[in-house]
Amino acid sequence: MAVSLGELAVRFGCELRGDPDALVEHVATLAGADAHSLSFLANPRYKSQLAQTRAGAVVLDKASASDCPTNALICANPHAAYARIATVLHPRSHGPAGIHATAIVADSARVDPTAHVGPLCVIGERVVIGPRTFVGPHCVLEDEVALDEDVYLAARITLCRSVQIGARTVVQPGAVIGGDGFGFASEQRRWIKVPQVGTVRVGPDVEIGANTTIDRGSGPDTVIGPGSMIDNLVQIGHNVILGRCCILAGQVGISGSTRLGDFVMVGGQGGLAGHLNIGSGVRIAAKSGIMRDIPAGETVCGSPAVPLTEFMRQTAVLQRLARKKDKL
Amino acid sequence: MAVSLGELAVRFGCELRGDPDALVEHVATLAGADAHSLSFLANPRYKSQLAQTRAGAVVLDKASASDCPTNALICANPHAAYARIATVLHPRSHGPAGIHATAIVADSARVDPTAHVGPLCVIGERVVIGPRTFVGPHCVLEDEVALDEDVYLAARITLCRSVQIGARTVVQPGAVIGGDGFGFASEQRRWIKVPQVGTVRVGPDVEIGANTTIDRGSGPDTVIGPGSMIDNLVQIGHNVILGRCCILAGQVGISGSTRLGDFVMVGGQGGLAGHLNIGSGVRIAAKSGIMRDIPAGETVCGSPAVPLTEFMRQTAVLQRLARKKDKL
Amino acid sequence: MAVSLGELAVRFGCELRGDPDALVEHVATLAGADAHSLSFLANPRYKSQLAQTRAGAVVLDKASASDCPTNALICANPHAAYARIATVLHPRSHGPAGIHATAIVADSARVDPTAHVGPLCVIGERVVIGPRTFVGPHCVLEDEVALDEDVYLAARITLCRSVQIGARTVVQPGAVIGGDGFGFASEQRRWIKVPQVGTVRVGPDVEIGANTTIDRGSGPDTVIGPGSMIDNLVQIGHNVILGRCCILAGQVGISGSTRLGDFVMVGGQGGLAGHLNIGSGVRIAAKSGIMRDIPAGETVCGSPAVPLTEFMRQTAVLQRLARKKDKL
Repeated sequence: MAVSLGELAVRFGCELRGDPDALVEHVATLAGADAHSLSFLANPRYKSQLAQTRAGAVVLDKASASDCPTNALICANPHAAYARIATVLHPRSHGPAGIHATAIVADSARVDPTAHVGPLCVIGERVVIGPRTFVGPHCVLEDEVALDEDVYLAARITLCRSVQIGARTVVQPGAVIGGDGFGFASEQRRWIKVPQVGTVRVGPDVEIGANTTIDRGSGPDTVIGPGSMIDNLVQIGHNVILGRCCILAGQVGISGSTRLGDFVMVGGQGGLAGHLNIGSGVRIAAKSGIMRDIPAGETVCGSPAVPLTEFMRQTAVLQRLARKKDKL
Repeated sequence: MAVSLGELAVRFGCELRGDPDALVEHVATLAGADAHSLSFLANPRYKSQLAQTRAGAVVLDKASASDCPTNALICANPHAAYARIATVLHPRSHGPAGIHATAIVADSARVDPTAHVGPLCVIGERVVIGPRTFVGPHCVLEDEVALDEDVYLAARITLCRSVQIGARTVVQPGAVIGGDGFGFASEQRRWIKVPQVGTVRVGPDVEIGANTTIDRGSGPDTVIGPGSMIDNLVQIGHNVILGRCCILAGQVGISGSTRLGDFVMVGGQGGLAGHLNIGSGVRIAAKSGIMRDIPAGETVCGSPAVPLTEFMRQTAVLQRLARKKDKL
Repeated sequence: MAVSLGELAVRFGCELRGDPDALVEHVATLAGADAHSLSFLANPRYKSQLAQTRAGAVVLDKASASDCPTNALICANPHAAYARIATVLHPRSHGPAGIHATAIVADSARVDPTAHVGPLCVIGERVVIGPRTFVGPHCVLEDEVALDEDVYLAARITLCRSVQIGARTVVQPGAVIGGDGFGFASEQRRWIKVPQVGTVRVGPDVEIGANTTIDRGSGPDTVIGPGSMIDNLVQIGHNVILGRCCILAGQVGISGSTRLGDFVMVGGQGGLAGHLNIGSGVRIAAKSGIMRDIPAGETVCGSPAVPLTEFMRQTAVLQRLARKKDKL
């Protein structure tokens, strides 16, 4: 899709330095761009590529604009503006409205006529699928699943009984939402499975990564707050409550009944024990192991995790001791 | 389903303090219960909620019974009794006996007439499916897979060639059992794949989590012992042997040819190197990295893992040194 | 399939000590072999089993040959020779050429007549499937996916839009290749998804494990080099570039835009931060956390990772200090 820079400047509130009639058709990196590309500069790491770019236009901030060798779309937050423009240039393919002939849909399911249900989906009893929602090929929606409007299930996603998904939420292939939580009672040297009778409620504007698993609650529900972003291969245990706009990077694991506030960030492969309270704004470094509650706003690192400054001191002292080990 | 407290007391060997004709219909937490709910108290963390509960009945032990404001079902192991009662109140839905019209079943497969094979399953040659076994939608069973009686494959599970699953075992969605083990020979600076000719034998009463992967043996089989509980996103390498009633929490990884005894517990994100022997009753803390054999009964922590007491000493000394770092 | 030792010796360049007309039918471990088995000895750990083996023949090196109680196939690299012979004795089942009646194939897709497309696959517009390529049951290939010749997709694999797979590459069940990368712009305390417009290009002779996820590039492509071996449940972020013949063990995670050279090895559960350069021949120990560039040839361990010798010194000094803690 070709769009003029003038239109983009108006629509996304940018200042345009250059030709308002110039057209861009796709996005590209500064290094990989051609005359039909829109590129952006947000990470100073890539500033050296600006002078050489062959992009048709670059989205950047005022401070960098004077170094831009081509048309410039200037704004305070180039990354966000780029994201919005890229969504216009590369719209997600949503498939035609309607139910594919090979999908198996229970009579009691209610599918909005503007929704798409793809090939070989299995849709259970009393499922509700909202307006403009996309259900890709090979999805399984068990009984009583509810999808709000504009949900996007890419392909081959399993939503177990009664799972609820909020508006505009995107789920990547292979995710399993609502599998049984891991709950067992011990009796005479064996394990008895505890039925998991809660479900999972996912808020609006959430992203859930490929092959990620979110367990249903044991009695209460597991809850994913609005706007939270969850990467691939993440494991979320039963009864976990995630606040708004949290970010969980790849392979993070959160054990049962732990609660996260809003805007919590967990780096890749971070792990949280069960029954913890993690305050809003907490940042947990990659690979950290969290064994205790963390107050709001703290940044922690290590396993067992400690505040970042303490972690750096521990690392430094250990390195120093190792170097002079023979003298101890 | 509504059941009287009198019937539950008799069936599960509890002492009843209260009205034997009172009915309960579902389970709930102490805090979330209503008059039709059965709740339980096993974790002292939740004792403070007992006085305020509005549950119709609570399962608890003798010591807590006097504080119970409603009908009490008293027994020595409230968690186990609750698990059994919850299974009665919330029976798993098993689908009708028979093979769905859209399933693709090889002529040589033998499916017990009481078994359920769901929509869009693909069942290979010489597969055997036992009495009352449930095969949910979108499962793929390659040639010669054998499922014993009362097995439950939730949905979208892949069992590769010749995999065997014991009675009453439950598998959550997305699990892959019997994929090729990770075996390569090095030759002239490239890798040659070694065919993986063993299979996977899963015992009875096992639970396997969502998107978990268990590789087939390279020559011998990979073996999962009876009653073992495996959480989501766990990786089990080729030739691994798990004993009875082990517990592997989420995202644990076990490398090839390692053997675990009985009742071994591995915390979340724990990792075990290959070719190790882990004795019965060993407990491995979350995130630990195991590089050597562990004798029976030991509790270990850290990476490389050491006995728990030593880990705590190491942590303490490092914290102390970091605090007085400038004085070193 | 039965093959004579004489034929194997000629075909794979081994010296035969024993009966050239003896037949072997399958492979087995030294301990589990019978008279129709071919076994091998490459790992000195198993040398003690050689004297007792009942194998029909053993592949081993010259140094061990004199201890072999049965027919010996002698060569410099017994593991590689065994891998090749095992492939002959246990050929992969490839299914008949042609498209299964239940597969859903877009009119514009080009499927080579020698390829196999299994039951219930969904093949999108303009997909290309090369000669002798096997697409197992329940695979989803979105629009414009391209598979070269002799590719093997075991079952239930998702290849998102435009993903390219090189010749002879093998993908295990449940893998997701080309899901959206994890890219978000921050704006006024919420996250805006950045469209991921690159794809994934997988080289020839690659292995990709079960339930592994490889994200599509954000703008550039994610690239997996020829001959690289990737185990189960591995996460590879957007724009990552993997060189030739790398090995990633189970549950490894590589964050976005990191580049690995050739022959890099990462142990199980290792994690790499984003935007790093890892030189050729680097070895990263299991569970390590990589936060900085690593020069070619180095071996690193720990989190944050340090050179192996330094890690061992750190571990030793910490153990020593913990033992004499009270004296500090």
